Amino acid sequence: MRKIVADLHAELVRYNLVAWTAGNVSGRIPGEDLFVIKPSGVSYDELTPENMVVCDLDGNLVEGEHSPSSDTAAHAYVYRNMPDVGGVVHTHSTYASAWAARGEAIPCVLTAMADEFGGEIPLGPFALIGDDSIGQGIVETLKGHRSKAVLMQNHGVFSIGKDAKAAVKAAVMCEDVARTVHVARQLGDPLPIPQDDIDRLYDRYQNVYGQRSPR
Amino acid sequence: MRKIVADLHAELVRYNLVAWTAGNVSGRIPGEDLFVIKPSGVSYDELTPENMVVCDLDGNLVEGEHSPSSDTAAHAYVYRNMPDVGGVVHTHSTYASAWAARGEAIPCVLTAMADEFGGEIPLGPFALIGDDSIGQGIVETLKGHRSKAVLMQNHGVFSIGKDAKAAVKAAVMCEDVARTVHVARQLGDPLPIPQDDIDRLYDRYQNVYGQRSPR
Amino acid sequence: MRKIVADLHAELVRYNLVAWTAGNVSGRIPGEDLFVIKPSGVSYDELTPENMVVCDLDGNLVEGEHSPSSDTAAHAYVYRNMPDVGGVVHTHSTYASAWAARGEAIPCVLTAMADEFGGEIPLGPFALIGDDSIGQGIVETLKGHRSKAVLMQNHGVFSIGKDAKAAVKAAVMCEDVARTVHVARQLGDPLPIPQDDIDRLYDRYQNVYGQRSPR
Amino acid sequence: MRKIVADLHAELVRYNLVAWTAGNVSGRIPGEDLFVIKPSGVSYDELTPENMVVCDLDGNLVEGEHSPSSDTAAHAYVYRNMPDVGGVVHTHSTYASAWAARGEAIPCVLTAMADEFGGEIPLGPFALIGDDSIGQGIVETLKGHRSKAVLMQNHGVFSIGKDAKAAVKAAVMCEDVARTVHVARQLGDPLPIPQDDIDRLYDRYQNVYGQRSPR
Repeated sequence: MRKIVADLHAELVRYNLVAWTAGNVSGRIPGEDLFVIKPSGVSYDELTPENMVVCDLDGNLVEGEHSPSSDTAAHAYVYRNMPDVGGVVHTHSTYASAWAARGEAIPCVLTAMADEFGGEIPLGPFALIGDDSIGQGIVETLKGHRSKAVLMQNHGVFSIGKDAKAAVKAAVMCEDVARTVHVARQLGDPLPIPQDDIDRLYDRYQNVYGQRSPR
Repeated sequence: MRKIVADLHAELVRYNLVAWTAGNVSGRIPGEDLFVIKPSGVSYDELTPENMVVCDLDGNLVEGEHSPSSDTAAHAYVYRNMPDVGGVVHTHSTYASAWAARGEAIPCVLTAMADEFGGEIPLGPFALIGDDSIGQGIVETLKGHRSKAVLMQNHGVFSIGKDAKAAVKAAVMCEDVARTVHVARQLGDPLPIPQDDIDRLYDRYQNVYGQRSPR
Repeated sequence: MRKIVADLHAELVRYNLVAWTAGNVSGRIPGEDLFVIKPSGVSYDELTPENMVVCDLDGNLVEGEHSPSSDTAAHAYVYRNMPDVGGVVHTHSTYASAWAARGEAIPCVLTAMADEFGGEIPLGPFALIGDDSIGQGIVETLKGHRSKAVLMQNHGVFSIGKDAKAAVKAAVMCEDVARTVHVARQLGDPLPIPQDDIDRLYDRYQNVYGQRSPR
Repeated sequence: MRKIVADLHAELVRYNLVAWTAGNVSGRIPGEDLFVIKPSGVSYDELTPENMVVCDLDGNLVEGEHSPSSDTAAHAYVYRNMPDVGGVVHTHSTYASAWAARGEAIPCVLTAMADEFGGEIPLGPFALIGDDSIGQGIVETLKGHRSKAVLMQNHGVFSIGKDAKAAVKAAVMCEDVARTVHVARQLGDPLPIPQDDIDRLYDRYQNVYGQRSPR
């Protein structure tokens, strides 16, 4: 699990979702009330399975020589309150953060958004770091929502998934559609996709499609 | 052919046309009613000649251990209905997909577009995955059209070519001109190119020029 | 110190902050009135600890076979007048330079800006190369300001830090937020962050947070 | 000279100035009425000193197994009519081509533009490939102009230099400033730089500065 989480940070770099050290991935350890997360202040080049840290669901350091990521409290809150979530990712990826800075959800105008997010990518509240505000904002927005990603106002993106890889995929796809819809809107209004077509696409992608193999 | 198709996916990655696994290349096997296509759910890093799959022109799996790409039905429909097509590519590349999200064709305002596409890059219909709707939309739009690429509304790009490499070139050039024309339009109206100049450029590039060697 | 400064130039390349040779890093030599800086006209690929040059605080070459960067006078002026500064970086990074070309400060509408810059990234004066005008403009703008970066009008960015690495981090973060706020503004008005929340974020990031380890 | 020209194409790729094979570099052979240019239809990965081709100043193939670039006539015309030019580069780089598609020169609003181009980057005429029209348009626009780059309307960029490397530098800087000025203009009007300041910057960069070493 340490190796999986360490390696997945390379995807954040590959897709240009992070600058300097501003983004992190965590993964729940199956069957235990623990998760693995990025250490604070370590650059992506230097991440190894060994320097990843392990925390309990209150965000306390359980194992590791570095401090955990400064976003650990938000990850921990999500794991505590969404038992099906096995992975959490946080980035300040450019286009998604731009929607977040304006306080706007991303409308569903691409079939790839309907497939992956089942509709719009919603906006979460403005929340300060330091207590459970960010975690609460994530959970309140995503609980019962199809979307696996939330735009935290004036801040950035948190994404979730059944495991760490799925959460990274949601972070990558979130930035990809945030950019495409942004570019589309620069020169006019994107055409809406009818709700029942969104439903059909989402249903197929999550069910029919999912029963065979992930795309 | 498996090796050619596997390797060509690296061009999609190199030119940033694809995020995660959302894009695919196929190539018709010369002299047979078969084509090679990307397996579903395999990342670009892991593509090898061995894990590519072979399908018949109805999209049925003929050879391979993975499921074929979820876009196989569209590729198959094109091969069935356009006998001269030897390669098909599908991407959600950002700028082309943005034009598609607004439901707009890309106007021909660059000599490179006149060379490669012979005019505008046309818009195809909104079509759902699951039956032959996407394939029909591609074929209806591109049959008899000079353009080797079509923007499928709210979806992405399909491109065709005499072989898989030519289809990849069309996908790369489509995104390149989609981006340049987008950027041009952000600050005003691009100047049109007179139709007879477009015709002359296209004719030269496809004929005089083509008889020597591809640029 | 030569090696540190030489290596840090790779970060400018990695984050696309520089074209050709138009950007440079310097670092003060602890305990001496000297700093290490990029040689003029040497490409980033060819930088080595050996070809870096050493200058005194008047910008005179003290050690090295190449001429120092043409921006050396500005670096020297900063070291002379800001004793706590241990590193200086100069780039023409795209988005920051675009704000500078319009003569606009970057408003603080992202929590990451509040963390790193404590508010807006300010605009410095238009100043010509050749005397101390640029250095004076940097120092007048940044002295007593929370921001570690200044947009020099019609020119580019200078950033400072306690050491060369911190100055590079400020340059990277400056371009990152310049781009995100630009993108946000393209489609409307970003939401402001209340001043007391900016203060709280900055305070936490610089103090509470900083006492443990850098993120 | 073959090796220099072959290697310089890697800079076009590194700075994302070219898609597929749509860009080329040439260099005059000192003391002879010959120049080395990219072969047609060979990808950048496959360029070697051996497969570069040599042409005379009428654009006729003198040495080499491949056809010369389809843009050879334009390069040859420049060498014939501008004896001081030792290198020519052609690209369809995105932002410069966008200005060209609108038929607009790039205004000089950055000190880096004043340094390198001495003012605006001018617009050349719309011209078709096939005779000397493109070459004439380049020469008429650049002769007596400070700028080493010209935006050919609806087409792309040609840049020149005392040698091939200087022409590549001009192509890289042209796209860099085309992008920055574009981005600046997206959100308002860039501030002009007074003409006498442009003159002072250009003079210093070309003379005082140039007598020591290139930056």
